Amino acid sequence: MSFVPFRPPRRILMGPGPSDVPPRVLEAMARPTIGHLDPAFIGLMEEIKGLLQYAFRTGNPMTLPVSAPGSAGMECCFANLVEPGDKVVVCRNGVFGGRMVENVVRMGGEAVVVDDPWGRAVDPDKLRETLRRHPDAKVVAFVHAETSTGALSDAQTLCAVAREFGCLTLVDTVTSLGGVPVEVDAWGIDAVYAGTQKCLSCAPGLAPVSFSERALEKVRGRSRPVQSWFLDLSLVMGYWGSGTRRAYHHTAPINALYGLHEALLILREEGLERAWARHRRHHRALRAGLEAMGLAFVVPEAERLPQLNTVRIPEGVDDAAVRRRLLEAFDLEIGAGLGELAGRVWRIGLMGHGCNRHNVLYCLAALEAVLSEAGAPIERGAALPAAMAAYAGDGEAP
Amino acid sequence: MSFVPFRPPRRILMGPGPSDVPPRVLEAMARPTIGHLDPAFIGLMEEIKGLLQYAFRTGNPMTLPVSAPGSAGMECCFANLVEPGDKVVVCRNGVFGGRMVENVVRMGGEAVVVDDPWGRAVDPDKLRETLRRHPDAKVVAFVHAETSTGALSDAQTLCAVAREFGCLTLVDTVTSLGGVPVEVDAWGIDAVYAGTQKCLSCAPGLAPVSFSERALEKVRGRSRPVQSWFLDLSLVMGYWGSGTRRAYHHTAPINALYGLHEALLILREEGLERAWARHRRHHRALRAGLEAMGLAFVVPEAERLPQLNTVRIPEGVDDAAVRRRLLEAFDLEIGAGLGELAGRVWRIGLMGHGCNRHNVLYCLAALEAVLSEAGAPIERGAALPAAMAAYAGDGEAP
Repeated sequence: MSFVPFRPPRRILMGPGPSDVPPRVLEAMARPTIGHLDPAFIGLMEEIKGLLQYAFRTGNPMTLPVSAPGSAGMECCFANLVEPGDKVVVCRNGVFGGRMVENVVRMGGEAVVVDDPWGRAVDPDKLRETLRRHPDAKVVAFVHAETSTGALSDAQTLCAVAREFGCLTLVDTVTSLGGVPVEVDAWGIDAVYAGTQKCLSCAPGLAPVSFSERALEKVRGRSRPVQSWFLDLSLVMGYWGSGTRRAYHHTAPINALYGLHEALLILREEGLERAWARHRRHHRALRAGLEAMGLAFVVPEAERLPQLNTVRIPEGVDDAAVRRRLLEAFDLEIGAGLGELAGRVWRIGLMGHGCNRHNVLYCLAALEAVLSEAGAPIERGAALPAAMAAYAGDGEAP
Repeated sequence: MSFVPFRPPRRILMGPGPSDVPPRVLEAMARPTIGHLDPAFIGLMEEIKGLLQYAFRTGNPMTLPVSAPGSAGMECCFANLVEPGDKVVVCRNGVFGGRMVENVVRMGGEAVVVDDPWGRAVDPDKLRETLRRHPDAKVVAFVHAETSTGALSDAQTLCAVAREFGCLTLVDTVTSLGGVPVEVDAWGIDAVYAGTQKCLSCAPGLAPVSFSERALEKVRGRSRPVQSWFLDLSLVMGYWGSGTRRAYHHTAPINALYGLHEALLILREEGLERAWARHRRHHRALRAGLEAMGLAFVVPEAERLPQLNTVRIPEGVDDAAVRRRLLEAFDLEIGAGLGELAGRVWRIGLMGHGCNRHNVLYCLAALEAVLSEAGAPIERGAALPAAMAAYAGDGEAP
């Protein structure tokens, strides 16, 4: 084995995440490490909490980044909110809903699963029907933006239904945060987790979470301790504390947090509403191009995530070969299908910093070239004009 | 709240960790993010596994960094090796042994605690005596280098004792790895975890772990799944895989892993034996200076960690005021006491990249100045000559 410094190839990341990380964020992560109990670092922690409240649209004091990837954020929510024997209704319309079920089981809870087709939003009526049959359910969990399919569910309505039945809500916003509206307070979400490597355009490795007062009451009223020491909210809370008081718990990933702070600053400078509009705009152009090429979307238009475009692989085309060619010849990464969609779809991300006109046009051009080379039955020469027309038609400056 | 990019102050980190991160590692973390399924990244993962085998002195194929801080590495070891009802003997001689007990309890195991005084090594005879009384114990857990006290235990002997009684061994090497010998294979350690922010001189946030074949047999023979989905070794294993096959589990913290790779390269370039010798050498000089000043070590010489020097705070000296003055006037961070040593000791780290002559001399000069200013009963003007004499006497080039 030869050991030399690693020089990553320069990719354009248009898969389901990580997305392209802007130079400002990369540069921030390279700043000198300081101690995690340094007053300067404690000031940074306070700012990160404030910036995450902005991103989540919440006043929850208990809003902070868990020191581990999104999957650990999911586990943090379930570990704290679910006690052995608790009944949890999980809406499942893709891989990540399935992972929620797995989490409930590992916490000793009882999962009641509401299944919806992959590629569709969660159906609020089915949820209501299920809650009628399970009046003892304590928590409703669902994925706002299913990363495995590109479907966006109506979180506001789902939370309202859960509230009708007195349930807490636990929501995955890993792929939605920063790309489409996430209104933690207005929708009454009780526990929410996200990732940093999607529309926040930060490196992977942290999981922003937020908990409502109702959720914290449930945590405080637990009859036995959370089964994870690392993810125990009462301890994490003491570490992230309020003001300058801190109880040592673990050592925070200092440099990763420099990056998150910078990424959240960028989001705040642009403004959430403008970021959402930007995602919609470039999605429209990408969609126009993909459809002009003859590629079909998996998710119906009204339930589609602008930041994650899932299209069917044309008949007879070799999935892996196309993705390899895009990576090798164009340095372009798009995502494969996951779970039951593996081999059948591609997932094209337009997330955060990577959601821009250059990426839309480059992706369409590269995809057309590679699919043509592979002899796929696509319309040639139509994608870029369609995308450019979409941009021209929206009346905004390029 | 004002939101501007965060510019950390330039500190010299001589506490219990994080330690100073060298520019090469900081620069590596700022390289462009690529996808976690990119062939180039999979190559990097393979190299990191190989470099960690080098650092741990092991051939264990199951050697990888958990995507979270050292505390999660601890939890990963306990979550996988301990099933509800399992009896685990924990040797406790400081805060981190206490945290091990907490982990056993949360896993539903039964902890049998062998207590030793804080500031002393774990006593192998007490362990043997305890194992005689508990022939049904399945695991022996102990901290190799107690970060809360600076005591180094004889891991080789403790592992041999555990083996006499057919127990698996679970060892915390968070502060020892890279600073003093850690011989996973030669000592027969079955599960081991470390941190990146101590003698590896990397940013915090990752936890290198390694598992022996005996440990994996125990994991494979579990009667129920690991209670943590995120830390389930059978899933983590699939992700870190062998060769180019990978099963998606979570998204690895790409940029943090760039940093770890570079930090491990630096360690390998120097060589473990030379790194250990360097830690001993600078410890001798620091010790000579601290003792000449009149400061007393907490840990007896034979049980002392070179990389973490714990000294008693002189009578009548205000702990927090001295540390604050060192930080504000000298940009120097030293560590406070933890647990039952809080307010009674300082912990001075000489870890990895930060273990060098400049730091030894600067720390002695700063400490003497601040303690003099505070009116502490110390010997003035003696520390630097004593340290310089120690360097001169060891016959090595400066």
